[in-house]
Amino acid sequence: MTDPRLTDTDRLAQAVKTGDRRALARAITLVESARRDHRGEADALLEALAGSGKQAMRIGLSGTPGVGKSTFIEALGCQLTDAGHKVAVLAVDPSSTRTGGSILGDKTRMERLSRQPNAFIRPSPSQTHLGGVARRTRDAVALCEAAGFDIVLIETVGVGQSETIVAEMSDLFVLLLAPAGGDELQGVKRGIMEIADLILVNKADGDLKSTAIRTAADYAGALRLMRKREGDPEVFPKAMTVSALDETGLSEAWAEMQNLAEYRKKTGFWALRRAEQARGWFADEVRQGLLRRLAEDPNAEAAMARLAEDVASGRRAPGSAAADVLQQLDADTD
Amino acid sequence: MTDPRLTDTDRLAQAVKTGDRRALARAITLVESARRDHRGEADALLEALAGSGKQAMRIGLSGTPGVGKSTFIEALGCQLTDAGHKVAVLAVDPSSTRTGGSILGDKTRMERLSRQPNAFIRPSPSQTHLGGVARRTRDAVALCEAAGFDIVLIETVGVGQSETIVAEMSDLFVLLLAPAGGDELQGVKRGIMEIADLILVNKADGDLKSTAIRTAADYAGALRLMRKREGDPEVFPKAMTVSALDETGLSEAWAEMQNLAEYRKKTGFWALRRAEQARGWFADEVRQGLLRRLAEDPNAEAAMARLAEDVASGRRAPGSAAADVLQQLDADTD
Repeated sequence: MTDPRLTDTDRLAQAVKTGDRRALARAITLVESARRDHRGEADALLEALAGSGKQAMRIGLSGTPGVGKSTFIEALGCQLTDAGHKVAVLAVDPSSTRTGGSILGDKTRMERLSRQPNAFIRPSPSQTHLGGVARRTRDAVALCEAAGFDIVLIETVGVGQSETIVAEMSDLFVLLLAPAGGDELQGVKRGIMEIADLILVNKADGDLKSTAIRTAADYAGALRLMRKREGDPEVFPKAMTVSALDETGLSEAWAEMQNLAEYRKKTGFWALRRAEQARGWFADEVRQGLLRRLAEDPNAEAAMARLAEDVASGRRAPGSAAADVLQQLDADTD
Repeated sequence: MTDPRLTDTDRLAQAVKTGDRRALARAITLVESARRDHRGEADALLEALAGSGKQAMRIGLSGTPGVGKSTFIEALGCQLTDAGHKVAVLAVDPSSTRTGGSILGDKTRMERLSRQPNAFIRPSPSQTHLGGVARRTRDAVALCEAAGFDIVLIETVGVGQSETIVAEMSDLFVLLLAPAGGDELQGVKRGIMEIADLILVNKADGDLKSTAIRTAADYAGALRLMRKREGDPEVFPKAMTVSALDETGLSEAWAEMQNLAEYRKKTGFWALRRAEQARGWFADEVRQGLLRRLAEDPNAEAAMARLAEDVASGRRAPGSAAADVLQQLDADTD
């Protein structure tokens, strides 16, 4: 029975809460939409779902193309759903924002996992810029949590800012690497090493097994030289080997993620970090909202276009020209 | 005789235009001020000086600490002032914004250059964030140009975003490097190689001379492998050796900078790039202005603080909470 007083948004919120995957997919499509009226609906939906208290473990996962990320997620995901977890997989794909093409190439991936009733896989939204993708992915994570998924994997590739963006919406950050010969550390950026909680060297199988073990030891050594994160246990960040192909090391890796999560929950770091992330998103939404109203005021936009040319030709100084635009915006708001 | 109808700002603008170094220093202090009433005065001053048509060659210069940057700037600067140029040296120092300390350590540097009547040296403004330093340095460059300096050197160190920031306010970007043994390219970030117009390997003197020559050849090779910048002559970007100590290679380096500048002026690239930079600054000023009015509305600020806690605790969704803040801002503007 549907209550006729309910709005479409209320109904969608209710359906998401029951864990209905089709409703979840529709809800994510709504938050991904660039249409202005959709934005209002999306905000109402997210507000209706706020305060449910449901929390997933948000795991950020990065690795360069070819490292076996899809195989790893599929293998780990299937183990987790088999163990009774509900697993959602989201993606932040910088290539889809720039070229329209996708490094992650979601369509043909993870067939086995996508057939699990307790799994939900969603490709990266295509947006004109990575900031837009970040906001929409944040919202999608919140929707997955409201739908009762207790593990949300957010995958990305090691390109540009996408790893930082994913780390900022995750509770844990896992870096998947390939076995490497020699002692060079595959040119992994120091900044990425610093945000990783767990480094997994994949392909520890067949001929590459001994190389993988040596690589993991190299990374473990490099991690020890780096400053420990405040509040984490001595043994983290950690480097281990896995084989997504042979499905070995996966439960050990998952056990470490759980250990770290438990530890952080006990010390309060988990909740503190979540609260900080949420405050950051809120500030970001306010900033974006301010910029949006400028874009939506035709007079201010016209003034901006005209003044931009005056500034470009050197006739006007940027600061006082900007003050003129803001005055125009005020005149229109009054 | 001072005209009594002139404002202080008009008088300061006139004094800057005559090239008075003390007036210039006062004007830069004004644009660097974080005080709100100073901001209005600063905008009025910059507006009064806009449209003078005076243009300096803006040279961005980066190099890691210890590469001999100060010695190089002093040697080149003295050669240029001897040749009749008016040379201003500004700095963007990321260390001063974070630690209060300064990598560039301006006070004791460049004594010889600072005694030249045609030179003007200004340390990096200390601000709470690099974005603030960028804006103030941009304004300081405009003031130096209005004061008739025909060469403005903007120096920075190879830390974080500061090189990109400096490149974005420069006509040319010069990278000063130390001689390095072996074929490794000193871990110079690819992004920095891509924005450099000229790489100068310093310390091509004494025992290091042959190493410097080999290093310059290595960089020249690396530069050839990179994509050419559209519109630049075949031979750029270029790598050469200099010795700031022996003062050799300096006039050759300066000749190359002039060649590239002439070429870009002839093709129109110079003016195009300047116009684009100015448009970017203007858009940035508008953005900053929008954020400032939020910070200056006590009711909106209070709403923001309250809602931030609701979002942090998960009771509210970031998007709809942000919409509430913007509504509060509107109510106050009406």
